[in-house]
Amino acid sequence: MDKNDKGKSGKAKFAYDGLDRTIHEKARLSILTSLMTHPTGLAFGDLKHLCGLTDGNLSRHVKMLHEAGLVNIQKGYENNRPHTTCQITSSGQKQFLEYVAVLEQVIRDAAPAVKDSKKSPRLTPKPA
Amino acid sequence: MDKNDKGKSGKAKFAYDGLDRTIHEKARLSILTSLMTHPTGLAFGDLKHLCGLTDGNLSRHVKMLHEAGLVNIQKGYENNRPHTTCQITSSGQKQFLEYVAVLEQVIRDAAPAVKDSKKSPRLTPKPA
Repeated sequence: MDKNDKGKSGKAKFAYDGLDRTIHEKARLSILTSLMTHPTGLAFGDLKHLCGLTDGNLSRHVKMLHEAGLVNIQKGYENNRPHTTCQITSSGQKQFLEYVAVLEQVIRDAAPAVKDSKKSPRLTPKPA
Repeated sequence: MDKNDKGKSGKAKFAYDGLDRTIHEKARLSILTSLMTHPTGLAFGDLKHLCGLTDGNLSRHVKMLHEAGLVNIQKGYENNRPHTTCQITSSGQKQFLEYVAVLEQVIRDAAPAVKDSKKSPRLTPKPA
């Protein structure tokens, strides 16, 4: 570890405190990326297909995102059948942007190592 | 949702199956990024500071990464005191590279929306 590893602020360089667990969880990251790229909202069925989730899992995670204020749920009817639409909120959009900025930092941090390892596969690790 | 949303393979476009949960968990992502950028290994204490983790949390996550074959743990002595070193394995390095490629995909998928929302904050969401 060299002296640059502490970072300018003296904080843990690789702690990634901005990786909010509400957003970072894989299924919720899928849902939010889908909704972020469809800001006018998505029908529950379309969201399900985009994320590759089951009805139950999608419902559970959308509910969590709604409770966290990141997603709005609109329940209505279309052709006399129940029709649910999900839409990312302004706060959800803001938090997603902050989250993506941290992901970009992870990639920047890893970049030199990624570049090196693509050039020459690493030495065999010492036995544990 | 338009026809491009299904992706070329017909798979769910935003499912991100490559976001392996072993690596994606925030603390383990910190540990692996630290070890990836220090391929000759890191002392347990240095790793702890880089990741901003407690002894207990670091031990628990390093053990999980070791059991998954991503990290080697070397226990020894330095100046008559116990000294543990962690090092990413070749397999860990390979899996980390695959994981980072998926992160890059998330960022590429989100990029148009990120760009738009930076230009003009989104309309007020419809009430739920």
